[in-house]
Amino acid sequence: MPELRPRDAYPVFQTLPTRWRDNDQYGHVYNATYLELFDEAMTMTLAPQGFLAPDAPPMVVVENGCRYLSEVSWPAILRIGVAVTHLGRSSVRFDMGMFDGEAESPSATAHFVTVTIDRVTRRPVPIAEARRAFLETLR
Amino acid sequence: MPELRPRDAYPVFQTLPTRWRDNDQYGHVYNATYLELFDEAMTMTLAPQGFLAPDAPPMVVVENGCRYLSEVSWPAILRIGVAVTHLGRSSVRFDMGMFDGEAESPSATAHFVTVTIDRVTRRPVPIAEARRAFLETLR
Amino acid sequence: MPELRPRDAYPVFQTLPTRWRDNDQYGHVYNATYLELFDEAMTMTLAPQGFLAPDAPPMVVVENGCRYLSEVSWPAILRIGVAVTHLGRSSVRFDMGMFDGEAESPSATAHFVTVTIDRVTRRPVPIAEARRAFLETLR
Amino acid sequence: MPELRPRDAYPVFQTLPTRWRDNDQYGHVYNATYLELFDEAMTMTLAPQGFLAPDAPPMVVVENGCRYLSEVSWPAILRIGVAVTHLGRSSVRFDMGMFDGEAESPSATAHFVTVTIDRVTRRPVPIAEARRAFLETLR
Repeated sequence: MPELRPRDAYPVFQTLPTRWRDNDQYGHVYNATYLELFDEAMTMTLAPQGFLAPDAPPMVVVENGCRYLSEVSWPAILRIGVAVTHLGRSSVRFDMGMFDGEAESPSATAHFVTVTIDRVTRRPVPIAEARRAFLETLR
Repeated sequence: MPELRPRDAYPVFQTLPTRWRDNDQYGHVYNATYLELFDEAMTMTLAPQGFLAPDAPPMVVVENGCRYLSEVSWPAILRIGVAVTHLGRSSVRFDMGMFDGEAESPSATAHFVTVTIDRVTRRPVPIAEARRAFLETLR
Repeated sequence: MPELRPRDAYPVFQTLPTRWRDNDQYGHVYNATYLELFDEAMTMTLAPQGFLAPDAPPMVVVENGCRYLSEVSWPAILRIGVAVTHLGRSSVRFDMGMFDGEAESPSATAHFVTVTIDRVTRRPVPIAEARRAFLETLR
Repeated sequence: MPELRPRDAYPVFQTLPTRWRDNDQYGHVYNATYLELFDEAMTMTLAPQGFLAPDAPPMVVVENGCRYLSEVSWPAILRIGVAVTHLGRSSVRFDMGMFDGEAESPSATAHFVTVTIDRVTRRPVPIAEARRAFLETLR
């Protein structure tokens, strides 16, 4: 179950413009597209820190989920808050909130659980120290 | 948390061929695309029963989630089992399992919670009897 | 065949950040996604002028095409130049160029031919004067 | 400009079920999604012949285009006819027609021009004989 927290409780925010094609036949952003947008916000946060480098152990998503609180529609400019809510040896849980522009309440919340694995064996490996230090800043 | 159940415990199955574009940069189906495929399986089950008729009260997704157990990749032909695990006055919970071809164990499980709402007021309304009878068959 | 023109020959530009999911299995933006991005740039140009208003006659795409000149990849910030190259009674041709950041040469060019139709009869209707005046500014 | 030909003039056909998410806000398949579906039909034709093998020289799309003749909508089952209309040293042109179920007339036609390149230098290379022989059967 994703966690609900106020806007000012997220340590970092990413800005994502919606695209017309994000809307579905009902004129609102499609449910699976919310997950794509949350995934993008997580990636925007981690990629500049080298988490996606081709030689780095990949961090794979093992579970995610979303609660839809109110509809968002193109051409909304979304602000997605990103927080780390659990930091294990190999696993990390991110809780995120999607805000429609300057709205105080989230339109949706999501959680993503990731595991860092060895590229070859696909088995969990410890998160490297430099990465762990960065993830600590997102608590 | 999606529920884990054996293949023969799903009352109905849908067949979904993957598309090359479902794969992401890592060569496996993209995480949010799993949710799209589960949503499609739910829609394939409900649409022939009139659940998406333009004059019917819409059934909106208020929560969903996925557990990723093993990777699937194009050109897999997916079989998605669909079950109703909670049937309330307005809300329904679906639990689904994605199987790669004839595999016995699921590659992913998902849950979707929907609420039937009034088209105008957007407030929850009771599920109509004919629909409820069909949903009972998916228990 | 899309038209090739220098960067400074487009009357208007739109900025589109790529998403990680725009990349395909080869690590570059997927071919059909270029068309989605060009379509988005056209929409970003026209929507603020009321072209997508629910009561306005819809402008439907009857033909489009793309030439791929060099690969673009997430996390590129794309700049798409938009020009009108034919303005008929009901039809408009847009030629667009996609530039990777500040690049002088386009990574791709596209053309879209649209026809304005009556919402009910689906037959071509003349483009309204206010719209035509705006489209003239994109020559 | 894609070529228009009757249904029985395509040497091979692929079957593609639409997905609910292929529809856009107007209730019809989104324009760029037609290109995705045509690309998928081309891939379905070529992949079983080894054209996408990781060690094979990649065949990249350098140009494509689509003419939209009539709208298609989920839950249509599409039949896409695939033909080779030009076979050069490195380049191939495919012309395709999308048919809604058993319809005699196409809903859309598309062309894709591909070039086979060296994986490292990214320069055009001759199409291997075994591939060329297969492509000849699609004339």
